[in-house]
Amino acid sequence: MKLVDIAEALDARVTGDGTIEVLRAVHPADAAGPEDLVIAMDKALLPLLATTPARAAVVLEGVLPPTGNVVACVVVKRAATAMAGLTTLFERPIHAEAGIHPTAVVAPDAVVGTGVSLGAFVFVGSRAVIGPGTIVMSHVTIGAEARVGAACLFHPGVRVGERVEIGDRVILHHNASIGADGFSFITPEPGSVETAKATGQVGASNRLLRRINSIGTVILGDDVEVGANSAIDRGTVTATRVGRNSKIDNLVQIGHNVVVGENCMICGLTGIAGSAVIGNRVVLAGRVGVADHQKIGDDAIVMAGSGVATNVPPKAVYGGYPAVPRDRALEQVVNIGRLKSLYAEVAALKARLKSVEPPPEKG
Amino acid sequence: MKLVDIAEALDARVTGDGTIEVLRAVHPADAAGPEDLVIAMDKALLPLLATTPARAAVVLEGVLPPTGNVVACVVVKRAATAMAGLTTLFERPIHAEAGIHPTAVVAPDAVVGTGVSLGAFVFVGSRAVIGPGTIVMSHVTIGAEARVGAACLFHPGVRVGERVEIGDRVILHHNASIGADGFSFITPEPGSVETAKATGQVGASNRLLRRINSIGTVILGDDVEVGANSAIDRGTVTATRVGRNSKIDNLVQIGHNVVVGENCMICGLTGIAGSAVIGNRVVLAGRVGVADHQKIGDDAIVMAGSGVATNVPPKAVYGGYPAVPRDRALEQVVNIGRLKSLYAEVAALKARLKSVEPPPEKG
Amino acid sequence: MKLVDIAEALDARVTGDGTIEVLRAVHPADAAGPEDLVIAMDKALLPLLATTPARAAVVLEGVLPPTGNVVACVVVKRAATAMAGLTTLFERPIHAEAGIHPTAVVAPDAVVGTGVSLGAFVFVGSRAVIGPGTIVMSHVTIGAEARVGAACLFHPGVRVGERVEIGDRVILHHNASIGADGFSFITPEPGSVETAKATGQVGASNRLLRRINSIGTVILGDDVEVGANSAIDRGTVTATRVGRNSKIDNLVQIGHNVVVGENCMICGLTGIAGSAVIGNRVVLAGRVGVADHQKIGDDAIVMAGSGVATNVPPKAVYGGYPAVPRDRALEQVVNIGRLKSLYAEVAALKARLKSVEPPPEKG
Repeated sequence: MKLVDIAEALDARVTGDGTIEVLRAVHPADAAGPEDLVIAMDKALLPLLATTPARAAVVLEGVLPPTGNVVACVVVKRAATAMAGLTTLFERPIHAEAGIHPTAVVAPDAVVGTGVSLGAFVFVGSRAVIGPGTIVMSHVTIGAEARVGAACLFHPGVRVGERVEIGDRVILHHNASIGADGFSFITPEPGSVETAKATGQVGASNRLLRRINSIGTVILGDDVEVGANSAIDRGTVTATRVGRNSKIDNLVQIGHNVVVGENCMICGLTGIAGSAVIGNRVVLAGRVGVADHQKIGDDAIVMAGSGVATNVPPKAVYGGYPAVPRDRALEQVVNIGRLKSLYAEVAALKARLKSVEPPPEKG
Repeated sequence: MKLVDIAEALDARVTGDGTIEVLRAVHPADAAGPEDLVIAMDKALLPLLATTPARAAVVLEGVLPPTGNVVACVVVKRAATAMAGLTTLFERPIHAEAGIHPTAVVAPDAVVGTGVSLGAFVFVGSRAVIGPGTIVMSHVTIGAEARVGAACLFHPGVRVGERVEIGDRVILHHNASIGADGFSFITPEPGSVETAKATGQVGASNRLLRRINSIGTVILGDDVEVGANSAIDRGTVTATRVGRNSKIDNLVQIGHNVVVGENCMICGLTGIAGSAVIGNRVVLAGRVGVADHQKIGDDAIVMAGSGVATNVPPKAVYGGYPAVPRDRALEQVVNIGRLKSLYAEVAALKARLKSVEPPPEKG
Repeated sequence: MKLVDIAEALDARVTGDGTIEVLRAVHPADAAGPEDLVIAMDKALLPLLATTPARAAVVLEGVLPPTGNVVACVVVKRAATAMAGLTTLFERPIHAEAGIHPTAVVAPDAVVGTGVSLGAFVFVGSRAVIGPGTIVMSHVTIGAEARVGAACLFHPGVRVGERVEIGDRVILHHNASIGADGFSFITPEPGSVETAKATGQVGASNRLLRRINSIGTVILGDDVEVGANSAIDRGTVTATRVGRNSKIDNLVQIGHNVVVGENCMICGLTGIAGSAVIGNRVVLAGRVGVADHQKIGDDAIVMAGSGVATNVPPKAVYGGYPAVPRDRALEQVVNIGRLKSLYAEVAALKARLKSVEPPPEKG
């Protein structure tokens, strides 16, 4: 690829010889030869350009790369946007063979679209439908009556439960579980949790647990992405839903009946308990918990590690355990840090006060 | 199904025409026609009944559904119990074919009971035993010498390790791991953690880590359920145990040698570290951590997001990080929230005190 | 195995008849007969020796086992070291058949070393390389162009992504994901998180999310171990790396571009966000979160449940949310616990102060 073409794709400009051709885009530490394009948009990486064997680099507008082998630069304005462009230009697409692998098991009444790739040991259940151009890698399960859209990419080990509905261009990573049963058990009489919520005390013993079956399903919108080893449970009666273009990281748990809006980003190890409602464009950072039935408004952000036990208004930034508005959360951290000196101060006040008080009367 | 029969199964009564027949139980928002039974036990859903095409609904005792197409109601007393009953009546059982799928690999010396269903790409190791009526969906591994009871249901991708023992009617969800090795490494001399626990300082460097192999196993009692992508590790020498009827949600980690009692509920993303002992009927809400070797008493409840670093007495409700009794945890949250005004108050006291103090003597 | 031989392997001594032969090493509660060696290095287990049917026990130096059937003891100095030795002597190796299972699918241009065991339903992609003596259990995926070293052990359901590089003697547990794509999405203009970081307020709406593809890979050093259902994502441009001999527990998430040093121990449900750098011999206890781009120094320890949002110096012990040095974290817990009495104290001071203040002037 010529530097001028890369620059055009990135809406960037070239300094130096734009006719230089590169084969790979690499981190400066990994550069191996003159056919490499080193990506050095982070200032901390610039010194590595002095010794790189590469002849071309991508740098941010306004920086001066050191002299060395690098004789041409693609100069970009915004690193994040450029990185999206670069990793598209130099994408390393998955190896997927055309057609249905001879070891795949496809129910005779399943409907497999044109151009679908089914890898080794793929199982497709009865009456399942797979849209055109979808790539299903090895070891994937697509349950009976599931409906999968077009141009999806399911990585090895993905489990799509029965009757689950998946939009177009959805990416599911290693071992993601879509449509396991919800975790829903009840006690015939009010149990320990119900009594504790009502009174603060455990007033009953859960000697009998009865299962609520999940007769609902999961519906994922177009362009959703779900990370490795994440789990989205089916709804009890209706569907658990993730809106179009929402992105879910690894090891995320989304409980039964949850509704996630569009364009959300939900980071690793986050858990959303049953029936919570997450708006559009919400960002849940890593290791967040959202309690059941809570609502998080559009465009809200929840900071990493927080435990959300209340509703969160739109556009709010919440943090802490329990989560509160960010400013209060930060203030609380500072206030807790100052406690040591507060205790000392109160002790000093006490002593000073004593010295201005009249002596106690004798009995 | 006739409404009168549904009502009888739910120990409920019918208002209106009990001879109406329904085919599906649905959320009011999903109702598509007169053959649907809409479940509207949540008051917030009642307004949807005004416009539903369904003719029959399930409602709570004491509410008045709006007029509309709904001409008959099943009237129930306790929503939770009714939901368990309804999702049993309208269960949508998994598609499992009778017998052993031709692609399944079963060791010649494995013992497979009558009526067992082994799906596509199932592997059953040497001398494993599977009890009658158990359903093993596609892509499941049952390790050598594992013993699985009767009438179990293993969803796709489940991994049952070698020698693991599983009771009757156990449900394992997508990709659950039962019997991976415990996480147990030691340093030949006391290492960084041991010295830090003893002195508060890192007094050693873990230059050599030696593995403790897990020669124990895992034993799951009857009616246990384990969620998607959860992991229960085998014991070091003896077994990690989960007592009968305990229910474990998705993405839960149960470490080596842990003993979980009966009828427990352990919610998503909870981790129980090695050798902890969880009593009977314990509820661990979502995202809880339990430190190694701690004991949690019968009927105790640990609130979501808590980190348990001590023993928890029976019937106690604990919360917070580190977890303390619920009342103290809630009090701490309030006290932390009030700190801003406390700092202001102490500053004001200081100023007031100064004004009543005699002026400092001059030096 | 004779007791004298066991003692020699453990660098221990024998009291009583060292010629006694044992077949199994068991927990005292599991002892079934005279051929069992009961492991009772924990003092709490000693009373069980009074009634065990076993004739031989392993005990710690300096304890006196009760009389009973036990007529000989292996007496050890350090329980942890002895346990590593005992579980090596009595290891129960996995059942792996020699050679390539007939159901395995191996790309014709893949290179499989001598003595490799490939189990049922294993998939090996194009140009992948597997070193000699490696055991790959059933249902494992090894992606195209992946390079796996010698003498590794991959448990059922492991997913090794394309181009991933794995050293020698690496152990991967059930369903571990090595090399899923990083979680990396950007907004063309600064989005909600960027504006909130800059101003504390959500100043933009993420109406467009653009994907940054992961063109990098994952490199695991020799003797690394990764737990069940854990996930290590590939780097954006370069590799996500885990150094030799580092041990990772179950349900751990390691984000794109993260570098983990050597000899680390990372416990269950911990998440390390993108581009964080973890030094050598670092211990992250269970349920820890490390924010993106943070650095944790060599030999540092992070306590369970902590959220690390800053760099951590070498040899430091950090705890809390947000994590601070251990002494401060413990002090904060104590200080928060004392708040109730502080509020009372300040109220009392206020009252006392009032009584020494002159009465307010009348207006």
